[in-house]
Amino acid sequence: MLHNNTLLDTFLGKKTDYTPIWLMRQAGRYLPEYRKIRENAGSFLNLCKNPDLACKVTLQPIERFELDAAIMFSDILVIPDAMGLGLYFADGEGPKFTHPITTEKDIDNLPEIDIKTELSYVLDTIHNIQTALNSKIPLIGFSGSPFTLACYMLEGGSSTTYLKIKHWLYQNPKYLHKLLDKITNAVINYLNEQIIAGVDVVMVFDSWGGILSNSAYQEFSLQYLQKILNSLIKSPNGNAIPTIVFTKGGGAWLSQIKSTKPTAIGLDWTTDLSQARKEVGENIVLQGNLDPAILTVGNKEIIWHEVERILTSYAQINNHSLHGHVFNLGHGILPSANIDNVSHLIEAVHSISHRINGTF
Amino acid sequence: MLHNNTLLDTFLGKKTDYTPIWLMRQAGRYLPEYRKIRENAGSFLNLCKNPDLACKVTLQPIERFELDAAIMFSDILVIPDAMGLGLYFADGEGPKFTHPITTEKDIDNLPEIDIKTELSYVLDTIHNIQTALNSKIPLIGFSGSPFTLACYMLEGGSSTTYLKIKHWLYQNPKYLHKLLDKITNAVINYLNEQIIAGVDVVMVFDSWGGILSNSAYQEFSLQYLQKILNSLIKSPNGNAIPTIVFTKGGGAWLSQIKSTKPTAIGLDWTTDLSQARKEVGENIVLQGNLDPAILTVGNKEIIWHEVERILTSYAQINNHSLHGHVFNLGHGILPSANIDNVSHLIEAVHSISHRINGTF
Repeated sequence: MLHNNTLLDTFLGKKTDYTPIWLMRQAGRYLPEYRKIRENAGSFLNLCKNPDLACKVTLQPIERFELDAAIMFSDILVIPDAMGLGLYFADGEGPKFTHPITTEKDIDNLPEIDIKTELSYVLDTIHNIQTALNSKIPLIGFSGSPFTLACYMLEGGSSTTYLKIKHWLYQNPKYLHKLLDKITNAVINYLNEQIIAGVDVVMVFDSWGGILSNSAYQEFSLQYLQKILNSLIKSPNGNAIPTIVFTKGGGAWLSQIKSTKPTAIGLDWTTDLSQARKEVGENIVLQGNLDPAILTVGNKEIIWHEVERILTSYAQINNHSLHGHVFNLGHGILPSANIDNVSHLIEAVHSISHRINGTF
Repeated sequence: MLHNNTLLDTFLGKKTDYTPIWLMRQAGRYLPEYRKIRENAGSFLNLCKNPDLACKVTLQPIERFELDAAIMFSDILVIPDAMGLGLYFADGEGPKFTHPITTEKDIDNLPEIDIKTELSYVLDTIHNIQTALNSKIPLIGFSGSPFTLACYMLEGGSSTTYLKIKHWLYQNPKYLHKLLDKITNAVINYLNEQIIAGVDVVMVFDSWGGILSNSAYQEFSLQYLQKILNSLIKSPNGNAIPTIVFTKGGGAWLSQIKSTKPTAIGLDWTTDLSQARKEVGENIVLQGNLDPAILTVGNKEIIWHEVERILTSYAQINNHSLHGHVFNLGHGILPSANIDNVSHLIEAVHSISHRINGTF
């Protein structure tokens, strides 16, 4: 039992005094103390690979704000990096690989990675964080989804048209499935090692599933999400680990995502939280989904107003209760987010949800 | 009555022998004959502003393919250009404005435009096209949605975060509404002048409505789409003009879009056509929604297979009938599209829909 068990209680289906909140990419560039460490680390990847520094930046937002969860500082692309693709971050261009996958042979030759060796730095980071957190709040571990990782591995970086992976998808689906199978096995091992190392929750980021047609999504992303969720182990003390699946742009596919039986579904900000609750019914937690831009362009009044609107509307549809909801942004926090606005948001969520809960 | 009335019959709710097809941006860079004229025109904007050349490129795909509609060659940004914002196209960077809107005063001072004068080149293009088409197939006119135009006018071009318009949206919604009102009036006049000039169908492209939260979408995009649809005139010969509304990324908002009562809803490729039919019920046409990437990365077999899959699945949900559907891409055709694949697509849609219709 943690000092602040609000998130885990929500995942267990229990009613809580207030709505828990954490923020995707809460340890990030909008924080001056993060930028300082990031600068000293030399590169983003150095920071990910240094368990002491990664722990330090994980804790930074926790020290500043009343967040209800920590999320380990890392990157979804450490798996392909461990597979030998050579991850680097070109300034202002996002992630790139020196050795993207271009041939069937590349897929055949993709090594099975030993998580305990190749990604020991992530497991060490988790140990460090849990020691430092000292049961204060839960720690979330994560992985990219197989489809999202395959996108980066085939495109060699970000893309706007995704023509390379779509070439494989339509021209050589057999080999794309072979690649996705290999990645899926690595993701399962990776998340299970994170669970052994002590994370309390795991989240799968399907950042690019939303670029697919619905049928392609089911075949090339969802079935692998399903396989992952079917293969996760329990925590070392025998508890089932709550799972969050987040397909950005998947707002029209919620009932399909629900069918994979995660504990929670992440919602991007284009999805209406109340509509989502209507669509998926009860018995599944929803996580989201404030437009992250509001933390850049908004102010205290605007943020309180938006939180009031979202929570009131949700309570109306959710049997006059706020339970089953974890507040978050609908996407990662922007580097331009205003720090005071982050404080306002967290205070607004805690205060307004507490008030609404008290009225029932 | 046109020689090929398939599209208009579909919009009237009639059953047709086969499913009509046209392609968003069908007159475009994937055609060598287009690239030639575009090069000679000096700039994309010159091409838009020259009624002879704009007519010529409109007809190019019609001469090459058995398309069931033409769409006038133009750009959604001619309205803000006519308002004095100074549209230009920087190579490889997309549209930009020399004078984007930055202050309340800019909005106050935005001129009402006289479409017949300022956008006479569009109306002349329509006359030219209709003369050349000689009642062969219908001609589609179009406009950008007020929200989408406002995005460009405030951002000064394309954006990935849309922080400028979101700043107005949250900090100064009153003035954003003032801007949207002004644009809406211009769009209504513009579409009505297109109708007088002879277009047979009008489409509103809400390319960026999908970046909004659902509540912001309703307030800042949908209500203006509604106002436009309420204000369109009949054709000179007294017929109601079919309307198509396309909000890219709006797949989760179909019933809201339906409430504005367009003739048809455009679907991007992430939306499942059959699911969309289930959601909106009968009495509204659906347009879409093949992933445009398939025309670049696919081949004849893949395209026939995809068309078969989409149409078969649609017929199953649509009372064993294909009616109420206009085939299109889920987004504009890519410059990298393969011309043979475009032929395959059109042939597949006509042939497979004809066969499926014959079996009922």
